[in-house]
Amino acid sequence: MIIYKTKDWLPAIWHFHTGPTAISLFRRLIVVAIYVAMVTIVELRYDDLRLKDTPSSFLSAMGILLSLLLIFRTNTAYDRFYEGRQAWGTLVNNCRNLAIFYNAILPTGDDDNRLFFARTISNFPFALKNSLRDLTSMDELDTTEEGEVRDLSNFDHKPSGVSNQLWVRSEALYRQGLITDSQHINLNRYLGSLMDVCGICERIKSTPIPFSYNLFIKLFIMLYVGVLPFTVIEVYGYLTIPAVLLTSYILVGLEMIGEEIEEPFGFERNDLPLNQLAQLIRVNVHDILQIYLPHVEKQAAKPGFTIVT
Amino acid sequence: MIIYKTKDWLPAIWHFHTGPTAISLFRRLIVVAIYVAMVTIVELRYDDLRLKDTPSSFLSAMGILLSLLLIFRTNTAYDRFYEGRQAWGTLVNNCRNLAIFYNAILPTGDDDNRLFFARTISNFPFALKNSLRDLTSMDELDTTEEGEVRDLSNFDHKPSGVSNQLWVRSEALYRQGLITDSQHINLNRYLGSLMDVCGICERIKSTPIPFSYNLFIKLFIMLYVGVLPFTVIEVYGYLTIPAVLLTSYILVGLEMIGEEIEEPFGFERNDLPLNQLAQLIRVNVHDILQIYLPHVEKQAAKPGFTIVT
Amino acid sequence: MIIYKTKDWLPAIWHFHTGPTAISLFRRLIVVAIYVAMVTIVELRYDDLRLKDTPSSFLSAMGILLSLLLIFRTNTAYDRFYEGRQAWGTLVNNCRNLAIFYNAILPTGDDDNRLFFARTISNFPFALKNSLRDLTSMDELDTTEEGEVRDLSNFDHKPSGVSNQLWVRSEALYRQGLITDSQHINLNRYLGSLMDVCGICERIKSTPIPFSYNLFIKLFIMLYVGVLPFTVIEVYGYLTIPAVLLTSYILVGLEMIGEEIEEPFGFERNDLPLNQLAQLIRVNVHDILQIYLPHVEKQAAKPGFTIVT
Amino acid sequence: MIIYKTKDWLPAIWHFHTGPTAISLFRRLIVVAIYVAMVTIVELRYDDLRLKDTPSSFLSAMGILLSLLLIFRTNTAYDRFYEGRQAWGTLVNNCRNLAIFYNAILPTGDDDNRLFFARTISNFPFALKNSLRDLTSMDELDTTEEGEVRDLSNFDHKPSGVSNQLWVRSEALYRQGLITDSQHINLNRYLGSLMDVCGICERIKSTPIPFSYNLFIKLFIMLYVGVLPFTVIEVYGYLTIPAVLLTSYILVGLEMIGEEIEEPFGFERNDLPLNQLAQLIRVNVHDILQIYLPHVEKQAAKPGFTIVT
Amino acid sequence: MIIYKTKDWLPAIWHFHTGPTAISLFRRLIVVAIYVAMVTIVELRYDDLRLKDTPSSFLSAMGILLSLLLIFRTNTAYDRFYEGRQAWGTLVNNCRNLAIFYNAILPTGDDDNRLFFARTISNFPFALKNSLRDLTSMDELDTTEEGEVRDLSNFDHKPSGVSNQLWVRSEALYRQGLITDSQHINLNRYLGSLMDVCGICERIKSTPIPFSYNLFIKLFIMLYVGVLPFTVIEVYGYLTIPAVLLTSYILVGLEMIGEEIEEPFGFERNDLPLNQLAQLIRVNVHDILQIYLPHVEKQAAKPGFTIVT
Repeated sequence: MIIYKTKDWLPAIWHFHTGPTAISLFRRLIVVAIYVAMVTIVELRYDDLRLKDTPSSFLSAMGILLSLLLIFRTNTAYDRFYEGRQAWGTLVNNCRNLAIFYNAILPTGDDDNRLFFARTISNFPFALKNSLRDLTSMDELDTTEEGEVRDLSNFDHKPSGVSNQLWVRSEALYRQGLITDSQHINLNRYLGSLMDVCGICERIKSTPIPFSYNLFIKLFIMLYVGVLPFTVIEVYGYLTIPAVLLTSYILVGLEMIGEEIEEPFGFERNDLPLNQLAQLIRVNVHDILQIYLPHVEKQAAKPGFTIVT
Repeated sequence: MIIYKTKDWLPAIWHFHTGPTAISLFRRLIVVAIYVAMVTIVELRYDDLRLKDTPSSFLSAMGILLSLLLIFRTNTAYDRFYEGRQAWGTLVNNCRNLAIFYNAILPTGDDDNRLFFARTISNFPFALKNSLRDLTSMDELDTTEEGEVRDLSNFDHKPSGVSNQLWVRSEALYRQGLITDSQHINLNRYLGSLMDVCGICERIKSTPIPFSYNLFIKLFIMLYVGVLPFTVIEVYGYLTIPAVLLTSYILVGLEMIGEEIEEPFGFERNDLPLNQLAQLIRVNVHDILQIYLPHVEKQAAKPGFTIVT
Repeated sequence: MIIYKTKDWLPAIWHFHTGPTAISLFRRLIVVAIYVAMVTIVELRYDDLRLKDTPSSFLSAMGILLSLLLIFRTNTAYDRFYEGRQAWGTLVNNCRNLAIFYNAILPTGDDDNRLFFARTISNFPFALKNSLRDLTSMDELDTTEEGEVRDLSNFDHKPSGVSNQLWVRSEALYRQGLITDSQHINLNRYLGSLMDVCGICERIKSTPIPFSYNLFIKLFIMLYVGVLPFTVIEVYGYLTIPAVLLTSYILVGLEMIGEEIEEPFGFERNDLPLNQLAQLIRVNVHDILQIYLPHVEKQAAKPGFTIVT
Repeated sequence: MIIYKTKDWLPAIWHFHTGPTAISLFRRLIVVAIYVAMVTIVELRYDDLRLKDTPSSFLSAMGILLSLLLIFRTNTAYDRFYEGRQAWGTLVNNCRNLAIFYNAILPTGDDDNRLFFARTISNFPFALKNSLRDLTSMDELDTTEEGEVRDLSNFDHKPSGVSNQLWVRSEALYRQGLITDSQHINLNRYLGSLMDVCGICERIKSTPIPFSYNLFIKLFIMLYVGVLPFTVIEVYGYLTIPAVLLTSYILVGLEMIGEEIEEPFGFERNDLPLNQLAQLIRVNVHDILQIYLPHVEKQAAKPGFTIVT
Repeated sequence: MIIYKTKDWLPAIWHFHTGPTAISLFRRLIVVAIYVAMVTIVELRYDDLRLKDTPSSFLSAMGILLSLLLIFRTNTAYDRFYEGRQAWGTLVNNCRNLAIFYNAILPTGDDDNRLFFARTISNFPFALKNSLRDLTSMDELDTTEEGEVRDLSNFDHKPSGVSNQLWVRSEALYRQGLITDSQHINLNRYLGSLMDVCGICERIKSTPIPFSYNLFIKLFIMLYVGVLPFTVIEVYGYLTIPAVLLTSYILVGLEMIGEEIEEPFGFERNDLPLNQLAQLIRVNVHDILQIYLPHVEKQAAKPGFTIVT
């Protein structure tokens, strides 16, 4: 994710136009440029289809409907982005509360369990992050005992595996009497919500905006941009080309940002900083359970993404 | 459901126009074409109703109100689609948490109960799916004991039946002391939410957008398209026909996508992949409870719908 | 409520224009017709107020603001409709869960309690329905013992009375030890939510959109329709009359649908099918608790409202 | 609050224009009238600033942005109004559930506690109402014992005081063994939510729409109304004055309704009927706990506000 | 935060234009002024690019899309502002309920624990406030024992530290038998929600609107303002300069208010009154637990921000 100082416009504009979405946007604009140039030359040199007097209300109504559809698209994309961020925010809250809970109930000297929970709670966001990114690497997971890694490799779905480890150990403590009934009830609210966050993220990832809407908006933009040159050519002459290109830039650009935003778990510039959030959870959980964590780990929880000044 | 690579437009456009909604859309457009052709010919050859000078603000205001209504329609349809998806997402979460719960509390060797819960939890999404699609087949349900199928057939409403089986067995374990009080409280949150998901889906299915709104929007589109040719004919001449057809395509198309989306439990292209979600739950639940599942079942949980490249 | 096959337009249009709202709409349109006819005749025959050249941006801005207000009205009305439907959906869920709960904890032979709960749970939606419709009849309520009806008649607010019966009997079972502590905690979530649903429905019923907004929108429509004929008369001549009538039909119609929808508990065509929902709960609850219900009752739970084909 | 029969327009219009907001609206319109009259006279008699040919798209875009901002204002104001109403609805639900709870668990003969809870639960909405209206009177509170009033006067924040009384008495019953553990858990959900409702209402009261937005909208209206006469004067002549006044009436009126609605706990016409809601809770709670309440109190719970027929 | 009497416009306008956002807005407008002056002079004296006849529907459609985007921006910014306010409202509710809870369960003479909880609950909002503002000062925190400050300094994340203190002391009371099982369950709902509020605020602070949208809106405004002078210069002549400046003022101003509002935890004029809210919690908590608080502290909980009369 890119954080930026909101009062500086020019560097941000440059930055914006060098990402992968921008490149794919420029590719589209080249197609539009060729089309509108052909239309302009043919119209001005040879023939005139006489669409120039299009009643303004007619085209304007189409433009308004298209604008409203693009904002609908923008809203749904943003809602997904925000829902994903909220899910990870809930994860931060629950991991902290789990750590505070274990710190309050574990006896002061019980370093084994403290270490286990500090590491295993921290593993959940990393397992979730990799699962959302279709990565199978378990390098970022931190383990205390040999058995755990072997244990995790039994699970196809790693977040379920980590959640399972936390439940199994908690139930063991409960059976030993270290966790009382009422503590157990409280605990399960936090434990259960880990998989809820996981499910929400997977839902956002696997359910884009319905196919028909996505396509319909693309088609509508194509039709609008296709008709546009005929209606302005009489007045603009060769200035038609930059005018249509500018309009296309805005319409296509807005649509493409929507597509980039609506699945916020990848590696693109606008995606959520999952690495840093997972690291933040690790640092907080170790801080609360008072388990030593190397300084380099703490640094990694600081916003490490580009800051546009 | 159709998943598509969002950067490719042309194959998607082709794909879009071959579904059943598209066919019914084309049928409407033929009616519009005949109407507008008649109007154009009569107007240009014989008479002129002199509506061509319609003050632009008047028709434009109607066009804006129609656009806003169509977006209202689109929003409510999409909200239903998304609410249905969220309900199934909640179902995934709760089934996984139920499995993790039982895995943590059942003794290691208790294969009977593990098998029972792996199968019965997995049965719920299948029973719900068939109930939402008005199917009575119970072939996809997986059972361990003869008594269960007979048991289910006592219930008119299968999801209630499966939920009932889970409650009855859980209460039996509770009475045997295998489930403690605090575990019982946690358990019931998950069990109760199964029927909540069922109720939400049935509500979405049985309550479309109020009749008056649905009709009013259809009527408004008819009026708008009916008046449109008179206002552009003077300028466009015979080009009136494609212009009005294009506008109709956009207005009617948007309205029909709304109708297709708002009940997302059927078999249409934009509907939710209920089969695959139910299968995903089955695979996850068996994975967590470490019950063997044939490889062919695991494959069925992978997105099996058409991928437009 | 009217359910309709969404692909058929013409029968739906006819159906739409025969309800009470439609009649009251036609009454308004007659007033508009007289007004616009008078304006047209006076203008064309005697004098010209010369408003015909109204700058289009001026009237158009007013038209847009009016459109946005009407959509705001439509949104809030629909939100109430949907909130009412959601409340009844929650009622369905909780009644089913209550039935599943009692079925799981009551001993197999305890027919007395099964019958009591099957009937009393089923009574709640009927009591709520009648209370929302200001009916005092208790004919639809089903009772097992003489004392209960007498008991209910002590309560001015019947839903509270039925809820009270369920609580009192449940507390008795709890004191007898038939319900354990953890079951009791789970039970109370369902019991408590009955009155929550009741409160939500009463709130929707008693709080319409704020008076000022309602009136302001009506006034705005009157002003807009009042000014409209002067701005189109020069161009349209006697066609002004149908043009203004059409516009009025759309503006007034949309406003009136909003009023009809926002209180969805009555007997109008767009209102929620409370009878059928209450009956559905009765059938489901008896199904789950395996209590015999006459076949005629099951039929009544099927959608009994007009189906426009 | 004013309830109105939605089908009658004319009496409602008269009623609308006699409230305090309307008077303050008329004051603004007089200022506009003087301004537009001066502009019209100067323009028509002496000089012409030649803004009459303002390209319509330019002013229209500003008009659309202003319309959208006003609807944003309207939406946020309405959301606050509705959130306030929902909070009081939740209060009704919880007070009823508290009464049902105590009725179910208190022994039949325990009139002392029944009376205490009937009165103290009923006191909460009255204490909250007065606190929201910055009134310190405790006349409406009903007490059984001398100690209670003295007790309440120790608290600066009366709702906290009443809530505290309910908690203290409940804890005493719990320590006496009259309330069991599981009843205690259920009870606390209702008790805790009383202060939640209180906090929500205080938040709505103390946080209006951000200052910048409020001001910006006012400024925008001033600029729009200020420029408007220049753009219509050429066409309208002296009719400019009523046209601009009408526009101002709509823009300023909509903005002022927003301000009136967004803090719904006062005494204005559109405010929530807190007196009647508090009285309704008192009647319901006494009804459920079967405590006698004089008939005059029951009458006060009926909608006592003006009904525009 | 600025509270204002909503009926007075003029002083508010002056106040609005003296803040830091306003200064940065004026800087932008100077750039626009230089640009539009240059364009106007060049166009009028030397050459004419002949864009004056831009078809109104073309520019108007762009203006509408820009307006919709700005309102989207405004909505998301306001939602963050409101979500932040809601989180602090929840904090007020939970701190009050915690105080009421401890007051009800602590024995009357237990002044030690009362003092501890009055102070430590009050410390949480202050720790959160400073953490959100990146301040490390602990001067505002109130402590009873030496050990506590030392204890807090072990925590990098102070809110976690304070929450931890509350949990540890509560668990100690629970182990001593002063808190029973059911009280413990209720307690943990309130304790857990403290860190939830903290997490929500941190999320709002660290996640602005996605970079692409922010930039795209800025870019769109630049393009619109850049093209605007060419389309109005023919009609307006030298009046083009104020007209474009006015438009820029509105577009840029709206965008900048959005940026100011969306992170509401700072010291700017529209930010939330965190100091006063934290002080309000302190006063309420001491009031409920009947712990003496100096009068000067109570004064600080009154709204101390500028009141524009």
